[in-house]
Amino acid sequence: MSLTDRSGCPISLALEVVGDRWSLLVLRDIVFAGRVHFRELLRDSEEGISSSVLADRLTRLVEHGVLTRTADGSHRQKAAYRLTRTGLDLVPVLITLGLWGAEHRPADQELAAAAQELTYETPPSWQALMDALREEGHAAGEPVAGPG
Amino acid sequence: MSLTDRSGCPISLALEVVGDRWSLLVLRDIVFAGRVHFRELLRDSEEGISSSVLADRLTRLVEHGVLTRTADGSHRQKAAYRLTRTGLDLVPVLITLGLWGAEHRPADQELAAAAQELTYETPPSWQALMDALREEGHAAGEPVAGPG
Repeated sequence: MSLTDRSGCPISLALEVVGDRWSLLVLRDIVFAGRVHFRELLRDSEEGISSSVLADRLTRLVEHGVLTRTADGSHRQKAAYRLTRTGLDLVPVLITLGLWGAEHRPADQELAAAAQELTYETPPSWQALMDALREEGHAAGEPVAGPG
Repeated sequence: MSLTDRSGCPISLALEVVGDRWSLLVLRDIVFAGRVHFRELLRDSEEGISSSVLADRLTRLVEHGVLTRTADGSHRQKAAYRLTRTGLDLVPVLITLGLWGAEHRPADQELAAAAQELTYETPPSWQALMDALREEGHAAGEPVAGPG
């Protein structure tokens, strides 16, 4: 059976949690920029996230067990958000996205170099899947990296 | 400098292309279910993508160089979409999402097992980043996998 014939597809279920741009950008800021406080996540977001969108995404990520919230009294701006173990396990998703962006999008050279420090050797099972896709006619007629 | 201080962030740029649920679900169907025709991608989508959303996402993915479109005459339903090399390089993003969903979401057991066949050994640079995040207080107070 295929991965998508039935309900309960792991990718689909993952995307219910992180299948929007803002959720992943918030996680990026926590992982790569060391931001944990609401006010830092709001103020420093280069993409200009609004206070209400940030609050909504943080609430959803807490509800899904990706982040924990540590309140500092009643002041929302002082609340701190940290990854749970479940959230920490999303780091590979951010890394693979960043490596793809560094290679295939017009990324800043310095930021691309930082991303590429997280480069890795393709695991054999991943390579086998990608090879099979080539055999099925994907990525045909395009140059393949490497000699030969 | 941090990964997010300036414009041109690789993750942000990647999310401009695949930062929505439908784009990634369409890519999932192409990669894991061997679908290439518009009508297959439309008919078999368990998530119930609409014809107009599917057409929009396919057009965007072609514009961004992720897919190629092979037209069969003028019949839209017969158009075939295949990954470019750039698109093939998104496979690791789908895999890491699927592995996370298999582990942390209520995925179908059989589909989760299929995803877990793509499991991998965490590259040292990824592990170092995740260890550093733990040291910064993330994923604290939670059980760590493994003995001890």
